[in-house]
Order: sequence, then structure tokens, then C-alpha cells
Amino acid sequence: MLEFKTVKIEVPQDCNVILGTAHFIKTVEDLYEALVNAVPNVKFGIGFCESSGPCLVRHEGNDERLRQLAAEKAFELSCGHSFIVFMKNAYPINVLDKIKHVPETCVIYAATANPLQVVVAETEQGRGVVGVIDGSKSKGIENEEDILARKEFLRKIGYKLA
Amino acid sequence: MLEFKTVKIEVPQDCNVILGTAHFIKTVEDLYEALVNAVPNVKFGIGFCESSGPCLVRHEGNDERLRQLAAEKAFELSCGHSFIVFMKNAYPINVLDKIKHVPETCVIYAATANPLQVVVAETEQGRGVVGVIDGSKSKGIENEEDILARKEFLRKIGYKLA
Amino acid sequence: MLEFKTVKIEVPQDCNVILGTAHFIKTVEDLYEALVNAVPNVKFGIGFCESSGPCLVRHEGNDERLRQLAAEKAFELSCGHSFIVFMKNAYPINVLDKIKHVPETCVIYAATANPLQVVVAETEQGRGVVGVIDGSKSKGIENEEDILARKEFLRKIGYKLA
Amino acid sequence: MLEFKTVKIEVPQDCNVILGTAHFIKTVEDLYEALVNAVPNVKFGIGFCESSGPCLVRHEGNDERLRQLAAEKAFELSCGHSFIVFMKNAYPINVLDKIKHVPETCVIYAATANPLQVVVAETEQGRGVVGVIDGSKSKGIENEEDILARKEFLRKIGYKLA
Amino acid sequence: MLEFKTVKIEVPQDCNVILGTAHFIKTVEDLYEALVNAVPNVKFGIGFCESSGPCLVRHEGNDERLRQLAAEKAFELSCGHSFIVFMKNAYPINVLDKIKHVPETCVIYAATANPLQVVVAETEQGRGVVGVIDGSKSKGIENEEDILARKEFLRKIGYKLA
Amino acid sequence: MLEFKTVKIEVPQDCNVILGTAHFIKTVEDLYEALVNAVPNVKFGIGFCESSGPCLVRHEGNDERLRQLAAEKAFELSCGHSFIVFMKNAYPINVLDKIKHVPETCVIYAATANPLQVVVAETEQGRGVVGVIDGSKSKGIENEEDILARKEFLRKIGYKLA
Repeated sequence: MLEFKTVKIEVPQDCNVILGTAHFIKTVEDLYEALVNAVPNVKFGIGFCESSGPCLVRHEGNDERLRQLAAEKAFELSCGHSFIVFMKNAYPINVLDKIKHVPETCVIYAATANPLQVVVAETEQGRGVVGVIDGSKSKGIENEEDILARKEFLRKIGYKLA
Repeated sequence: MLEFKTVKIEVPQDCNVILGTAHFIKTVEDLYEALVNAVPNVKFGIGFCESSGPCLVRHEGNDERLRQLAAEKAFELSCGHSFIVFMKNAYPINVLDKIKHVPETCVIYAATANPLQVVVAETEQGRGVVGVIDGSKSKGIENEEDILARKEFLRKIGYKLA
Repeated sequence: MLEFKTVKIEVPQDCNVILGTAHFIKTVEDLYEALVNAVPNVKFGIGFCESSGPCLVRHEGNDERLRQLAAEKAFELSCGHSFIVFMKNAYPINVLDKIKHVPETCVIYAATANPLQVVVAETEQGRGVVGVIDGSKSKGIENEEDILARKEFLRKIGYKLA
Repeated sequence: MLEFKTVKIEVPQDCNVILGTAHFIKTVEDLYEALVNAVPNVKFGIGFCESSGPCLVRHEGNDERLRQLAAEKAFELSCGHSFIVFMKNAYPINVLDKIKHVPETCVIYAATANPLQVVVAETEQGRGVVGVIDGSKSKGIENEEDILARKEFLRKIGYKLA
Repeated sequence: MLEFKTVKIEVPQDCNVILGTAHFIKTVEDLYEALVNAVPNVKFGIGFCESSGPCLVRHEGNDERLRQLAAEKAFELSCGHSFIVFMKNAYPINVLDKIKHVPETCVIYAATANPLQVVVAETEQGRGVVGVIDGSKSKGIENEEDILARKEFLRKIGYKLA
Repeated sequence: MLEFKTVKIEVPQDCNVILGTAHFIKTVEDLYEALVNAVPNVKFGIGFCESSGPCLVRHEGNDERLRQLAAEKAFELSCGHSFIVFMKNAYPINVLDKIKHVPETCVIYAATANPLQVVVAETEQGRGVVGVIDGSKSKGIENEEDILARKEFLRKIGYKLA
């Protein structure tokens, strides 16, 4: 048996989601520390699918609502060694470096505020992430005007110097 | 609906392709900087699939042909938050570290000069990369003679010390 | 043609497996060095699927049994540019950082002691990893008691300070 | 001639200072980007001592007062290729990773809110940082009670899990 | 006042010492975690010179003798924000990456089993590391025979492939 | 005895020098690999001051003149565990990341094409780097016109996007 399914993830208002895989239940504590080291006042919840022994969804966080959401979504995914983070007061660019350096982290599948569909493979043994549909399909290729608007936007919000 | 398709990527002569995912339109400028910091005289084109708002393929580069190719291939992929880089005058080993450290980068799916098939998942919502077929299937396991030839080759081209 | 299959990987007693992708036959030597730099007395075998030219499984290691196992499993996978490491006397958290920094490394799909099923895509051209089933499905969400037990466990084995 | 001097740096209220060395005038733009990528709403000024050609103190920032302060202090230091960052709304732990990965960065000498004395070597040719006096001398070794207080403090402010 | 002194550090049999600077008392806990993540069964002691408030030497470790030694040597150094690690069952190459990535780490001055003299600057305000004398002066330049012996040695102990 | 001296380093035309410290004679081979992985056609010489046992200057490289120069300058420095790299066909920004990740690397003191004076501490035991005078003293703070010229220059040579 090998079946593919999609699990839908709606990202709460003003939040971002990060989906990845790691290993070992220590991951939830290490991700917690990575996030509080990344940004002052970041609020977040983490869920991690332990995949041996009790096979529980392990969870941590400093915001109860996001912690509960992360635990429930991780359980809905039920993909061994996957983790999911919902966060606010920070953007993925602020935290991804620190998450990549958590010693258990394997892969980051998505970091987004878009609606997300997780493509999941299921066998008799268990489930695993195979990819994500992150937001919408491309509608075209940017032209000269779009390029100028993009550059102006990034310089206006202060990410790039004019 | 969940369908899987393949998108074929032919890598131009003397070029390499890097396929990954990131997030945020700033990615194209950050990848640009990562590449020019990596190797003097590297020539490249970058395409990135923005997956919210206008959903345009964002592109940058310092070689018009490779930039156009990257934009077109990214559009053919149309996988939200994926990026594709075509480059010459440099090898992936020269640039991967810097690309991994771009704050938006999530995953690198391939870095290769081989013909590449990208396995894409498609739903009503959009599309996403689930994996790649990178070159050909294995034909055997190297024997003692093959091992010696491999070691000699790596030492002859200067990557390893004899 | 696009077919999906699973390849089963049984991890030997007291061992862990790491599955990822890289590029270039130099990968086997670089992974070898990454591992011996990571942990004194680590024992391991590495297999890597070269995907152009002779398309051989390249292998290295400092433990004959694990080297042979890695070569055979890599051949069974036959996914271009994938690598597999079997190791003992060390845990993935001890070596993942160094493996991620190997200049050829693209993605780490799994680092685990669980039974593993690798989901593989196959076309006329070749094969590629699309994901893994790492251990078992989640059985529930940890409750207050489970959380306490987890914290005590991590502090008892010395990974976290009380 | 080889003389040693100290330059005093008073860190403004609610600010931190980071002192390091890099090379190339691009450093000021790269440090700017590193900082805005690290923390939303971080405010900062950067000064960098160009040490060839016009030998100007190059400066950037998104807070005029901190930018001016950084430029003036860098000029007072006049140590070739040194940089100084004054910042608020963020702590050094939030930004050091990104600063270390700026491609021009060589060494970080200090990241602190303490009064700082920079020990400077001067020759006929120019000046260079040789070290820093960061805050005050140690007054003793923590005892059991101090250790408990430290652990409680770190767990109360949310950096470590109890 | 600006005076320079040397502090002598004798490294215990079968141990290595690492000397660096960081900031924030959390450093001792973060270094502890970095080390236990690096190598199974590593034994170590850490001392860190807090340089504001109580100005205590903070210490952690999983070996009482090395912990006491580290605390005493850190106190003898009394250089604000410096840390010292004595460790056994591991080599610096096994742990330096993880120590560099601790979010508080600034600079690593030495990682060695040699006798070490730390050059310290002292002012009325406090003390700071300015450099180290790590082992002995060079006695010559290796010739062809020495080069062969070096290469053979590194390949014999398994760090490089023949 | 504690004396301070300066050692002058003239960087050959079209070359850059990198000065740092590491440990273990394996450093010369690891730096060699780091450099050949960084940039195609980079030419370089490396010298490293072994500081125990035979205390020889270890050297590697792929350019005889630069190798000899590096060996001689390292011997002139005779600072235990220091290394020096002379290179051409590449800039420090292209290689520093890879050098920082060499498992033996401790600190990078300079990466420059400027005339360099290395400040060295000497005791009866040996010698150590305490800092560098990298180029010339600052002559002023850039004004609005200088800032515009700097930005235009960086965009003209392709390091930043307009």
C-alpha cells in the first residue's frame, strides 16, 4: 500500500508556519530555544511527531493558542519526525537560520503565510511528508514594470538599500 | 484532486542547475548577492515563483540568456516558492553554502549538470515540487578497480591531496 | 511513465541511518571526512549513487559491514545523487551539522534508528527520492504527565540542565 | 613604533554594541541587510573603517542617532577594517549568527551592553584592535545558591525550559 | 593604566582546552548543550566570566574535576565575557562547529592540548584577552620528507583517505 | 618576559592574504580542500605553524610561489597554531565561509590586499598573534557625496542591485 493525501493548513492571521523534519523528542525543546534566541517577543507553538515508542505528538511554545494549534496540526499530519511551528511577531527569515542549525533538523519543507497543502505519503507502516503546495500557481513572468515595483517595494520596506 | 507530473529540465552546455524552495520575493535579490559573492565571474539567471498576490515569476541574473531560461523554467514549474538557478563559470560546490545561508532558503532539491525531471504535485490550489529524477539509475556497485580510478581522478583534478 | 514505489530500510541494531542527496562522486570522500571529524571512533559506511557516466554506487567507510550495507542499499535505491550512511558509536545529532556543511550536500531526508520506507519516484529516465516514512504514525498528543516524563528523561540522560 | 592605547565606548541606554573586523566597503551594506533580516524593527547604526584608497569611515543604519554615533566611534577607533554596530530593539544573540555569516566578517571582538574599552595597537602605518575590556573583573566563583538563582532567572525570562 | 600580563594554563593529561569569548550568563548552559550534542560521552567543565552585576564566574559541566578547574582558571583570567572549556573523550575538531554556533559566542582564541599562555590586558576597569601563546615557536619549514610523513600519518590515523 | 613586535606582510600584486589560527597539522590539508571547493582556478599557498612535537611550518598549495611565500611568512611569524594563506584568482569573500567552517579554524584575524603588520606577543615559551594593523588609519567620515559614490560603485561592479 502506498497512498498520497493532502492535509490542509490554514495559517492564522498575522502568523507564519514552518514545516520540517527532525528526529528525537529533544527537538521540541531545541526548537523552543532556537526561536526565543532568534527574536525578542516572538510568540509560537511547536508540534513534533515522535515516531517510535509512545509515538506522541510532543509540543512546546510560549503561546497557548499556537501551541495547541501546532499540536493538533502535527497530529493531523502524523508524519514520523515531522515538526510544525506556528509563530507571530517574527518572520521566517528571522528564525530559519537558527532552526536549520538545531542539531536534529533535517529538512525545511515550507516557511510561509500562504495557505498550505501538505502532500503526505501513507503506507501500512506510517506516514511521511513528500512535499507542499505553498500558495497559488504562477500567473506570469514579471516584466520591466513589475521588476521596478518589486525593487522599490523591497527598498521602501527597508530590506534593501536604494 | 492530487496529480503528479514531471517537468523536464535540460541543462545548457557547460552549465549547472540548482533547484530549491525559499519564500518572499526578496529571494531573487538575495540569491543574486549570494552568487556574486561566491565566485568571481560567475554568470547566472534566477527564477522564483512568488505564490501570493500577483503570483509572478520573479527573476534576476547577470546573463540575459540564463535569466530568461530561468524565468521560463520557473514558470513551467509554477510551484509556489520554488526557485531555479542556471549558472556557468562555477560549480554547485562553489555556491551551495552561500545559497543555503540565504535567510529565505528552505530546501535544495538538486544541484546538477544532469538532465533533470522534476516531480510536481498539483491540486486545485497550486503546485509543489516533491522530488527530482537527477540523471540516470545506478548500474552497479564500484569494485576495487573503480575505487582506485575514482581516487586517482579526484586527486588528479586537484580536489584531494595524494 | 511516473511510478511510485517504496524501498524498505532496516537499520541494524545500535545503528542509525542518514539519507540525503548530494552531487559529484567526491561526496563519498567528503562525507567520510565529515564523519571522522565529527566523533572519535565513529564507525560507518557510505553509499552514493553517481548518476552520470558509469553510474556506479560509490562507497566509503571505516567499517566493512556497514560499508557493504550502505553500498547495497544505495544500489537498491538507485536514486540519482542520493546518499545513505549507516553508522554506530554516534548519533545523528553529532554528525548532521558537519554533513549539512559538506559542499555537495543538498537535502537530508532522514536521520533515524526507526524502520524506514523510502518513497521513490521512477520514470524512464531514472529514480528519485520523494520522501520517507520514518517509523510509525502518531498515536496521540502528549498530556501534562507525558510532558513531565519527557522533560525528566532529557534531563536525566544529560541533554538538558534541570 | 608600536604603542597600545585604549578607546572608551559608552553604550547608550537600552542599546548593545558589537565590535568586529571585516574587509571591503561592501561590509556596511551587508551588515545592514544582516541586521534587518535578523529582527523585525531592529534599529541600528554601523560604522566601518575603510583602510585603503580614501580611508573613509563608511556608515549605514536605520536610526540617525545610532548611525552618527557608530560613524564617530569608528573614526575614533580608526582601526583598519574594524566595524562597530550600535543597536536597540534586539540583543546580540538575535543577530550574531547573521553577522558571522556576512561574507566579509573576520572576527567579532565583543557583543555587549557593558562599558567597553578597546585596546588598540598603533604603528606608523595605522591602527588595529588587539582586544577589549568588556565590563568588570570577576569578583568570585558562583556557589550552589548562585547557580540556583541563575537557573531560575534563565527559566523565568523564558530562555530555558524548566 | 594599561598593563599586559600572561596567565598560564596547563592542560590536564588527555584533555584539551578551548578559550573564547561570549556574552550573557546563558552562555554556560548553551555551551553545555553544545558539547553534549557534539560527542557521546564527552566529559567537560566550563567557566564563564560574567562581567556585570554580581560579576561571578558561572560554571557548568558533567565532570566535577574539570568543572572546578574551569571555574578556577576562569577566575584567574577574570577577563569579562571570556569562557574556558576543559574537556576529554573528544577533540576540538569534534566540538568547535557547535561552539561557534552558540548564539552568544564571539571569538575562539585557542583550541589546544598544548601549554597555553593567555596574554591579558588590564586597566582600572577590568581585564580582557588579547591573544594566546599556544605551544612552542616554529623550528623550521617542513621538507619533502616531512610532508610525506605528515600525509602518511593523517591517512594512517584515518582522517584522510589514501 | 612578554614582548610585543610587529611582522610586516607585503601582499603580492593581485593577491590577498588571510591570517588566522587553527590547530592540528591536518589544518593545511583541510584549508587546501576548502579553497579548491570555493572557487574554480583559485591559486594559493598555505603555511601553518605546528606548535608541538617537531614544530614545523606545514605547507600546502597549488601555486609554488605562493606556497613558498606562505611557508616563509608563517615561519617568520612563528606563532603557534597560526596559519597564513596567500591567494589569487579569488577574493576573501569567496572563501571565508568555507575557511570558517574548517573544523580546526579558531579565528580569522585579517583578509586583505592591504599592507599588513601583525602584532605578535613573545614570551620564553613562544609567540602568538594579538592583532593586525590592516592598511591605513581612517582619514574622515564619508559625507553624502561619498555615500552616493560608494553605492554607485558597488552597483556598477555588480555586487548590489540598483
